[in-house]
Amino acid sequence: MSKTFEKLQPYLDKSMALQTARNLFEWDDQTMAPFEAAEYTSKVIGILSDEYMKATINDDVRKLLKKLQEDKEQEELTVNEKAIVKELAKTYEQLENIPPEEYRAFNELTSVSSRKWAKAKKDNRYEDFAPYLQKVVEYKRKFAGYRAKGNKKPYEVLLGDFDECFLMPQLDTFFEKVKQDIIPLLQEVSKKAETIDKSYNYLKYDIDKQREFCKYLAGYVGFDFSRGVIAESAHPFTLNLHNHDVRITDRYMEDNLESGMFSIIHESGHALYEMDIDDDITQTLVGTGASMGMHESQSRFYENILGRSIEFWEPIYDKLVAAYPDNLKDITLEHFIKGINKAAPNLIRTEADELSYCIHIIIRYEIEKMIFAGDVTVEELPSVWNKKYQEYMGITPTTDTEGVLQDVHWSWGEFGYFPSYAIGTAVASQIFAYMKEKMPIQDYLKQGNLSSIREFLRDNIHKYGATKNTNEILQYVCGEDFKADYYVNYLKEKYTKLYNL
Amino acid sequence: MSKTFEKLQPYLDKSMALQTARNLFEWDDQTMAPFEAAEYTSKVIGILSDEYMKATINDDVRKLLKKLQEDKEQEELTVNEKAIVKELAKTYEQLENIPPEEYRAFNELTSVSSRKWAKAKKDNRYEDFAPYLQKVVEYKRKFAGYRAKGNKKPYEVLLGDFDECFLMPQLDTFFEKVKQDIIPLLQEVSKKAETIDKSYNYLKYDIDKQREFCKYLAGYVGFDFSRGVIAESAHPFTLNLHNHDVRITDRYMEDNLESGMFSIIHESGHALYEMDIDDDITQTLVGTGASMGMHESQSRFYENILGRSIEFWEPIYDKLVAAYPDNLKDITLEHFIKGINKAAPNLIRTEADELSYCIHIIIRYEIEKMIFAGDVTVEELPSVWNKKYQEYMGITPTTDTEGVLQDVHWSWGEFGYFPSYAIGTAVASQIFAYMKEKMPIQDYLKQGNLSSIREFLRDNIHKYGATKNTNEILQYVCGEDFKADYYVNYLKEKYTKLYNL
Repeated sequence: MSKTFEKLQPYLDKSMALQTARNLFEWDDQTMAPFEAAEYTSKVIGILSDEYMKATINDDVRKLLKKLQEDKEQEELTVNEKAIVKELAKTYEQLENIPPEEYRAFNELTSVSSRKWAKAKKDNRYEDFAPYLQKVVEYKRKFAGYRAKGNKKPYEVLLGDFDECFLMPQLDTFFEKVKQDIIPLLQEVSKKAETIDKSYNYLKYDIDKQREFCKYLAGYVGFDFSRGVIAESAHPFTLNLHNHDVRITDRYMEDNLESGMFSIIHESGHALYEMDIDDDITQTLVGTGASMGMHESQSRFYENILGRSIEFWEPIYDKLVAAYPDNLKDITLEHFIKGINKAAPNLIRTEADELSYCIHIIIRYEIEKMIFAGDVTVEELPSVWNKKYQEYMGITPTTDTEGVLQDVHWSWGEFGYFPSYAIGTAVASQIFAYMKEKMPIQDYLKQGNLSSIREFLRDNIHKYGATKNTNEILQYVCGEDFKADYYVNYLKEKYTKLYNL
Repeated sequence: MSKTFEKLQPYLDKSMALQTARNLFEWDDQTMAPFEAAEYTSKVIGILSDEYMKATINDDVRKLLKKLQEDKEQEELTVNEKAIVKELAKTYEQLENIPPEEYRAFNELTSVSSRKWAKAKKDNRYEDFAPYLQKVVEYKRKFAGYRAKGNKKPYEVLLGDFDECFLMPQLDTFFEKVKQDIIPLLQEVSKKAETIDKSYNYLKYDIDKQREFCKYLAGYVGFDFSRGVIAESAHPFTLNLHNHDVRITDRYMEDNLESGMFSIIHESGHALYEMDIDDDITQTLVGTGASMGMHESQSRFYENILGRSIEFWEPIYDKLVAAYPDNLKDITLEHFIKGINKAAPNLIRTEADELSYCIHIIIRYEIEKMIFAGDVTVEELPSVWNKKYQEYMGITPTTDTEGVLQDVHWSWGEFGYFPSYAIGTAVASQIFAYMKEKMPIQDYLKQGNLSSIREFLRDNIHKYGATKNTNEILQYVCGEDFKADYYVNYLKEKYTKLYNL
């Protein structure tokens, strides 16, 4: 091991331990902690966060990092160590240029603004949230300004935090292609979809049985219960302490069968990624998914590309019917598959079908670009939002609650995050196209052989964690750069077949 | 606030935050974490523990502590600050005199030895555990030696860690009294108890219903679900992050109704104590129970003194019968009360009745004294154990699994802990005697008015946390020092009445 890297190791270990502790508090807060705990626990989390910052950003580490970036030192590093140094440099770039007191003030602001958002959404009062959103935007613009090098635009800086391979030029091209091809397809499909009777999905489904069946589904796709657990929370999510402790949550609704099932498959996709990270790099800066986009590619691969296909359900649909015979005995597998793929223009992103989903993302992306280019004020956001929905979806929100207030992300200052969802599905489509060439993936699904699919993902993607970025992974796996065509073709092919267009 | 104390505050806050994180990991390990997580998570816990030690024991804090112990500085401190300084001095006395590398080696040893203990207990092979126990004893003896001042014996040092008010002179007197009075009483009671038919307790009791009824019981005695949660674990315990986040666990057995119910009442007693600690002192060194003995006094007060009385069950026994009508419809309240108080000599401490319980503790106390006086070798422990059980209980374990291997404590190095259980019951009896004079406590129970009882405990004991020690609490509440007579009288009176002796 390089002597310089060896000196860095204890600092990295300390950062990792403090970050893991913060993660556990986050998990606990969402799944377990009593309601009144927050105020007192936040004192603890605040101190741990300060300690994390001190352990990560300090003169000792700064010097070591600088040294490790020199050519001579680089030569002595292993592939993984190089990747860790690169990741550390990114962390420095993100945090070092921001004055600590401004960073703390911003964190305090977002903790307030996310509560204000929740209240404003509940009350349908955008005007109550707007002043806080205004401040959040100002901070993000200022922070991006501190960090922007050369002519880099603020929004470009923010996008880069979520996926360095998808900045404005890539996203503009990607989304233009999607708009051209998918908006007309959605209109066509939705006319046909109207006749699909999906009322079975909204009958009464016993929660205990859902819990049991969803656990079965997680295990079916490969979730390893000796290295992971499932709990419940208001919004499903995945969080891991390391590759031997990966946790997912689900939420079960008595009057919606699909909700819990597709959430658990989605989160299992995230979980498999984290469980498959190599032991050598877990608990390091690169011991996690390559990017938000890559992570979403795995969750959406399982949820949509596999999980909404007829081949996936063929071997297990009987089991689902057996769990709820009264509700499902007259619903054929073919009917069920049409049901879970019913598509139509809609207003709420988190309830959107596979076809309309990317349109929700495009709208957010275009608005975020406008915000940071100064082309729209915070005050004008609701009307811009509604106009875009009318233009692309053909429908207009009647309230801000089902419009501009629906997502929490902006209240946290997470601008530039939304594109990850779309990148994820597009990357997944590209990998799927490649896998179909290389292996009888649909036969595997019909045989209930999920492990062959998972092995491919582990050996080609998962185990490398963040030692490669999204483009490097695509080059490594598929031998080519990202191409939006795969995504558009995947959707066209799927829906054309499903709806006999 | 004293300037010196003000300087100390950030160090204390950092220690507290790191300790709270360790507590959360402990909770998570017992209730949630997947099986394979331990090895990787232990790396995180190791680093957090080192950081905790560094934050607590260092030259800056040492200097401030020394200064704060000076008369002039003491004058400037509030009552709570003085108590915190005293507690910090105790921590220093415990940790500062032990070389850090020995302390770390000891922690590694106990992590191994507790696993060796579990295996040896399962296999009934004391000889596999003995070499580890030998090393644990040697470390504890050495550590106590580092700390012993004057002529203080090593076991005296260890006892003091759990309750400074109960050292060998106090315990010798206490336990002699108990032996004289309780051993003959137990013999007398057990003859009569044989006729009590308790088979109803071992019928099949649905786990979900137990979970629900136990939750009801916790709420009934005052557990506040907005500031606490109940989970499940292999052995019931209480753990809190602060006074607004107090957690208890239970374990439900399908073929034992009592087990889950009395565990939840016991843990609720611990929880009420922690929930009632004043906001001013939570998250400080004195923001917890005064001692292990005081803590056990509260849990046993609820579990035994209240929870096994006919008055406690009078208003709620119908509800219990309604939960399990098939099993309990023919069991009268009087029969049930005899059942939950059935007493007889027995071998397993954790399954012991109220009357024989203290005999288990006396045996352990006497053996621990012998170990640290050098009067018995680790090799001889099984035979000494068995002889004592024959002498005091009139029965002999047939295996070491139900003998010397039954408790985990020694494998952790927790010598001096067991007396806390007996102190707890005795202190509870003394407080109970006082409360009966001051309030119609039995009427309150009959009316289901648990809150008047809890208010008394909160205002006189709980809220002060560890700002008073056990003796100071007894003086404050009852106006006298600890007296073992109350305990003996309580048991005599209770069992004489119950069994018409």
